[in-house]
Amino acid sequence: MLVVKKFGGTSVANKERIYNVARRCIEEYQKGNDVVVVLSAMGKMTDELIELAKSVNPNPSKREMDMLFTTGEQTSVALMAMAMAALGVPAISLNAFQVAMHTTSNYGNARLKRIDTERIRHELESRKIVIVTGFQGINKYDDYTTLGRGGSDTTAVALAAALRADKCEIYTDVDGVYTADPRIVKTAKKLDEITYDEMLDLATLGAGVLHNRSVEMAKKYGVQLVVRSSLTSEEGTVVKEDVKVERMLVSGVAVDKSAERISVVGLADKPGTAFRLFDALAKANINVDMILQSVGRDNSKDITFTVDGNCGEEALKVIEDNKTRLNYQHVEIEKNVCKVSVVGAGMMSNPGVAAKMFECLYNEHINIKMISTSEIRVTVLIDVNEAERAANAIHDIFGLAE
Amino acid sequence: MLVVKKFGGTSVANKERIYNVARRCIEEYQKGNDVVVVLSAMGKMTDELIELAKSVNPNPSKREMDMLFTTGEQTSVALMAMAMAALGVPAISLNAFQVAMHTTSNYGNARLKRIDTERIRHELESRKIVIVTGFQGINKYDDYTTLGRGGSDTTAVALAAALRADKCEIYTDVDGVYTADPRIVKTAKKLDEITYDEMLDLATLGAGVLHNRSVEMAKKYGVQLVVRSSLTSEEGTVVKEDVKVERMLVSGVAVDKSAERISVVGLADKPGTAFRLFDALAKANINVDMILQSVGRDNSKDITFTVDGNCGEEALKVIEDNKTRLNYQHVEIEKNVCKVSVVGAGMMSNPGVAAKMFECLYNEHINIKMISTSEIRVTVLIDVNEAERAANAIHDIFGLAE
Repeated sequence: MLVVKKFGGTSVANKERIYNVARRCIEEYQKGNDVVVVLSAMGKMTDELIELAKSVNPNPSKREMDMLFTTGEQTSVALMAMAMAALGVPAISLNAFQVAMHTTSNYGNARLKRIDTERIRHELESRKIVIVTGFQGINKYDDYTTLGRGGSDTTAVALAAALRADKCEIYTDVDGVYTADPRIVKTAKKLDEITYDEMLDLATLGAGVLHNRSVEMAKKYGVQLVVRSSLTSEEGTVVKEDVKVERMLVSGVAVDKSAERISVVGLADKPGTAFRLFDALAKANINVDMILQSVGRDNSKDITFTVDGNCGEEALKVIEDNKTRLNYQHVEIEKNVCKVSVVGAGMMSNPGVAAKMFECLYNEHINIKMISTSEIRVTVLIDVNEAERAANAIHDIFGLAE
Repeated sequence: MLVVKKFGGTSVANKERIYNVARRCIEEYQKGNDVVVVLSAMGKMTDELIELAKSVNPNPSKREMDMLFTTGEQTSVALMAMAMAALGVPAISLNAFQVAMHTTSNYGNARLKRIDTERIRHELESRKIVIVTGFQGINKYDDYTTLGRGGSDTTAVALAAALRADKCEIYTDVDGVYTADPRIVKTAKKLDEITYDEMLDLATLGAGVLHNRSVEMAKKYGVQLVVRSSLTSEEGTVVKEDVKVERMLVSGVAVDKSAERISVVGLADKPGTAFRLFDALAKANINVDMILQSVGRDNSKDITFTVDGNCGEEALKVIEDNKTRLNYQHVEIEKNVCKVSVVGAGMMSNPGVAAKMFECLYNEHINIKMISTSEIRVTVLIDVNEAERAANAIHDIFGLAE
């Protein structure tokens, strides 16, 4: 069996943790399996490198930042190979050049295009544990690139796909995917299995154990993902295409407090209005999430949407700067809102989920400000102070604690 | 004009020094010249990386040490590119993979075989300052290697040779090559010019501004070297094949205190004796320097030789461990000795130098323990307590202070 294991920065933050990871990988290796390990930079090293760079140039080029960043993972993999050697197991570290991790050209946020597997296969054949730098790649100019947020997860999944690995284990500080955030919902339970689509919706909505890009890639290439803890030997949660039939209608409840709502009131009710608004926001690189447009009345309409919590003021400024072109009466921002969602592949064939959720919120006297749905998800925007009560009530009504 | 400039670790130890180097390079660039900069790892970073590695594995593999080491220079070059960009000059950093610095396979002490110049030339053509990682290379397995002591000097000279640079400037913390160590001989003077061979003899003998391998390479490819200070704008010392005709008989006096003398007494006076002795030492990787063999008498002879100061005890042990095979009466070590040399291309055509040196030492009542000569050098082994007096007297008698 070929297993790809990915460990984040906190898992390799010091000598003891490096040895902990080394031992876990050796355990797998000693079962006779082939093991490929993907590592991030140690602990706060990436932050320290940013600080170092900013001390020299407050606005460094992304190309040189990537050149600097990649030293982080290279340090991790070299130390891990040394730790495994000290434990008597042959291991070899490889960076993005040595593997040949081909990416697109854009520095700081590149996408993996192709991974050469020859070197890794060669090392596996001589029974070595292969330790690969996560997060980094090389582009067509032979320059280092980095993959942006959650990049090491993506490296691991892409490697698993390229090597046709039997599974890809993502080690985190939680022991799997839960029906809800255990800090908010005390009765939350760990899920044994979840589908890619459910995981994608949960990630998007801030339950965020895995980064979206890695889940998308796992789905695309059919890589069986396992989310598990680097601290315990618990089994974790398996992310795959199909899960067992007798499953819950709903898999989990997600709460995302990093949302702000913007309402643009009194827009002209004619073609092109929405285009101009969202085009202006897109050009400012602002991601818009839920969108609601009122029914036109008296040649006027309102558009309401949500953005990430750290983008609200910026979105407001873009809209105000374009007041003449957008032609509206006034714009409002509401910051004390949050998104609560139920996610479940089962709801595709069961239309009652939304109604049940709304009923639950009605019983709790919680006002719904906006609604958005996908095939396997229902999301409502509510007052942030009611988030925990809503999440617990919904978690109960769908029987997730049972 | 194409100039290669090499700066060591202390020259890039912090932000201020990085900017100092950046400004010096930009000065050259703004004259319209092409500039290639070779950097070592920042300050004590290499030492810190060794400590980090040893904390994980007291005996790390050389392959993984090189993987770890190379992050040092990569950090330096990325920061330097950022500093130059902040000063408004286009610059790009390149590592051993990006340049393609091909070396032999041996980790930790590889030798450069071939440097691809395409990428560097391409970047120079678009009028960028090119900043290259010193000390590191890649071998035929696509693994990182490092060049051993003085490696960055070698990188700089090799790049200058490959690019057919007009000169290669090695920036150090002294402002050139002196007729003697100014800390020992107060009247020592800076030399404007020196030949490769003289520089080689001075480096071997511990005047050590440049590493031997870099001087050898410069000689082989006819690269004009300049040794100069990174702190002042002094002209420095030019190292080249021929120097002006009306030159001093002797260029300088070198003192090397890191020597120990070992005497093996009562060896059999028959063929194979010297071979067995030095073969045993070579197999233990001990470098032997001056060798003196007594004239055989009563079927017995003595062999005396010097080794580096930190190898004396080890050499002694090797000889004692092989006592039966080597068949000698006893072995002695003398630690309080030092080598004093005069070096000068001029002495090839002037046989009086050795005699003049010996006379000078006789006048000072300094006993000569051993003598060794090359075409352009005379070296004596004397008591270490007399080193400074000897150096000053010799410096005077050859008129080096004038």
